[in-house]
Amino acid sequence: MESHFKVIIIGAGTAGMTARREIAKSTDNYILIHDGPLGTTCARVGCMPSKALIQVANDLHHSKILNDKGFIELKSSPDQKKILNHVRSLRDHFVGGIVTGIKQWENHIIKGRARFTGENSVEVNGKKFTADSFVIATGSRPVIPKDWLPYKKFILTSDEIFELEDLPKRLLVVGLGVIGLELGQALSRLGVHVTAVTLPGKVAGISDPAILEYVLKGMREEVSVLTCEAKPLSQDGNVITVDLGGVKTEFDKVFMAVGRTPNLDTLGLNEIGIKFNEKGVPTYDENNLFLTEHPHIFLAGDVNAHRPILHEAADDGRIAGYNAVNEVQNFKRRIFLGITFCDPQVALVGESFRSLNEKQTDFVIGTVNFEEQGRALTKFKNRGLLNVYVKRDTGHLLGAEFQCPDGEHIAHLLAWAISMKMTVSEALSMPFYHPVIEEGLRTALRMAAGQVSHVHKELYNCEDPPIR
Amino acid sequence: MESHFKVIIIGAGTAGMTARREIAKSTDNYILIHDGPLGTTCARVGCMPSKALIQVANDLHHSKILNDKGFIELKSSPDQKKILNHVRSLRDHFVGGIVTGIKQWENHIIKGRARFTGENSVEVNGKKFTADSFVIATGSRPVIPKDWLPYKKFILTSDEIFELEDLPKRLLVVGLGVIGLELGQALSRLGVHVTAVTLPGKVAGISDPAILEYVLKGMREEVSVLTCEAKPLSQDGNVITVDLGGVKTEFDKVFMAVGRTPNLDTLGLNEIGIKFNEKGVPTYDENNLFLTEHPHIFLAGDVNAHRPILHEAADDGRIAGYNAVNEVQNFKRRIFLGITFCDPQVALVGESFRSLNEKQTDFVIGTVNFEEQGRALTKFKNRGLLNVYVKRDTGHLLGAEFQCPDGEHIAHLLAWAISMKMTVSEALSMPFYHPVIEEGLRTALRMAAGQVSHVHKELYNCEDPPIR
Repeated sequence: MESHFKVIIIGAGTAGMTARREIAKSTDNYILIHDGPLGTTCARVGCMPSKALIQVANDLHHSKILNDKGFIELKSSPDQKKILNHVRSLRDHFVGGIVTGIKQWENHIIKGRARFTGENSVEVNGKKFTADSFVIATGSRPVIPKDWLPYKKFILTSDEIFELEDLPKRLLVVGLGVIGLELGQALSRLGVHVTAVTLPGKVAGISDPAILEYVLKGMREEVSVLTCEAKPLSQDGNVITVDLGGVKTEFDKVFMAVGRTPNLDTLGLNEIGIKFNEKGVPTYDENNLFLTEHPHIFLAGDVNAHRPILHEAADDGRIAGYNAVNEVQNFKRRIFLGITFCDPQVALVGESFRSLNEKQTDFVIGTVNFEEQGRALTKFKNRGLLNVYVKRDTGHLLGAEFQCPDGEHIAHLLAWAISMKMTVSEALSMPFYHPVIEEGLRTALRMAAGQVSHVHKELYNCEDPPIR
Repeated sequence: MESHFKVIIIGAGTAGMTARREIAKSTDNYILIHDGPLGTTCARVGCMPSKALIQVANDLHHSKILNDKGFIELKSSPDQKKILNHVRSLRDHFVGGIVTGIKQWENHIIKGRARFTGENSVEVNGKKFTADSFVIATGSRPVIPKDWLPYKKFILTSDEIFELEDLPKRLLVVGLGVIGLELGQALSRLGVHVTAVTLPGKVAGISDPAILEYVLKGMREEVSVLTCEAKPLSQDGNVITVDLGGVKTEFDKVFMAVGRTPNLDTLGLNEIGIKFNEKGVPTYDENNLFLTEHPHIFLAGDVNAHRPILHEAADDGRIAGYNAVNEVQNFKRRIFLGITFCDPQVALVGESFRSLNEKQTDFVIGTVNFEEQGRALTKFKNRGLLNVYVKRDTGHLLGAEFQCPDGEHIAHLLAWAISMKMTVSEALSMPFYHPVIEEGLRTALRMAAGQVSHVHKELYNCEDPPIR
């Protein structure tokens, strides 16, 4: 194997592998350097095992509802050990699929940790490799704040939680971002006594205060949620004592979900003169992913700390991979779509409430509460609040923040509608079956249609079905 | 109350009430004649009680899966009585909401059966009322074939099934249209021993042979399905004997689901010279709903036997109501969307496989099987097959037939995409979250994109995300 390549990819996660597929369309002259076990963040410790755990947790919760209604009779409590084994076995299935896929090009893999020794060279296990361009796709890892480091044996992150043979009795969840909210609720539904702490206004990335309040209220019906900081105080055997806003409380474990940090620190980037910005990453072009001052180096996936979501990482990989071996193109990024798999699900689509306000966009809000919605009632899932944002003068759908039953699907429908530049009147002329959750969205759209400007109403027939 | 009106509406179901709302925008000079209890087909005997029953049936089925995996332990069998009471109580809630809504305009209601005595007059309880125009919205009723009439005490239709205090032990389901498939499966999941008979190729309106075969195969894993005719032979006490393709079989009840017939026969239409066509209805304009030879009479909702689906009935009502009091307009009808709430759900969207072939459209098929789909696996719902039809030269989405998990939502997404005249390349540039059922749809779309003509591929970038 020669030691100069057209491209060197660092990291065989989702972004690295998509970049590789794109690069392999043009050249065979590349290597992929990877440290640690194969398999993506998504399959190993992210989307997949969490969805497996959440699914069972929500199914148990639903079974309890059926039990309380007297339709079925549940014996004893759920078998946590079997459930955790199931999560691991499903996770292994997904990781296995990825590892098998890698076999087709495994001769391109160099195992070890890469460190830049120059603008065009890296060292791995004492060997030097050079390349014309680089795709850095090293991902991210959970943050453990400094004052918690002495208590490491009590700390779980998403890296450890799916490895547990038994669930702790008393768990503190620190942070109610996407991961804290999802797993905090799920672990509570699996029988763990969960306490969660969050900073004010920091829940699953929600920026609309009405939705934020609604989500917190629902979470509080299942889990004790404190809005304060958590400080570790002492450890004694298998118990950690934590200061929660002045109150000393004992826990068996602490689930640390305060965020993730890009895996950039061991790459030696600063030693070759690459500077980091205030976001903790080198400044890069968000559409094309090259470093502004070193355009032969690309940052793809979670490592660029932009949108740490699988489908964005896959897009990043394709964009970085394409641009690494072709003339740089301007790729079309997708409309933002973020889903938190709590129950009901939380979703953020298109422009956020915050960004619309920051830009001083003139918009109207259509809203719907799902507590009396017909289909939600039959599903025993009548909880939810949805706000959809619509441009006042043109009637265009701009974005939405919400929590509602089957939220992931409503989120796709809205994301596609916004992508297609749909107006609220056009949306009302679409089919809505009956009885479906989508009819709740229609209620919100009708409310928004009632508030858009006369110009829009004259251009379109704001009733459904419209006159042609 | 004067006895001449601008409009007389006959029937206070979904179509009649939507027509009324539209008419009331222009005039107070109308009456609505209604026979029987208030509340719509949907709320009383259709969508709503069936969805309540199906929900519990599927929840029980899911609980059994959790039980079989050892996650929970179920005691004894489900409490059928409590479940049936729950269905009725939810149904009463929905009907109650409708009846309350009617209170605002109840002074416009005449109770009784209307019979035409002339082109512009009807008689109700011996009283004569005349009007400039009429909206007939009398709905439909289940068909009971003649040879079954002597066995009426054994026969259940959707009018009776939700009234049962106890479920029968052995049930014959005649017909696997939407209602037979939905309720046949649900009753089986509630503990009834179900046998179903269907005519070849007649399942839930599916026209794509691959999808039809897949749906039948799945149904056969739960219910004994025979492709033959069922003939009643004899009754003895509480048992009916039926000839199923030459085999004598005993049942406790027979669920008759061979179709519905419009309630047109008691209106005296033929006595005033209105002729019926081969579909059993007077010929009418499908967009504007007036009778071709009597344009002051409109047919709205299930009574016109066109698309007996709630959202179409509501659209019919608005169109007929508008046209009854205004100059006739050409309304834009929605893309076809039909959903069968079996598990997994079956859906038909846009153009059917049959109609595309009849029109000799040049189309390609993208297909996906959900048995190994990631999210479907975590949901314990990895069953399904989806075919999406795409125009070969332009890449436009035309229609789809499928059975898949969360099918109702995939159906909305596709119906909206087709309505927006989306091409397969545009669809691939939309956001797909991970892990979601929508990723299965993406697999089918990618397969279709690979088959569209070069012209389309040159116009669009068929990879995702596309270069701008």
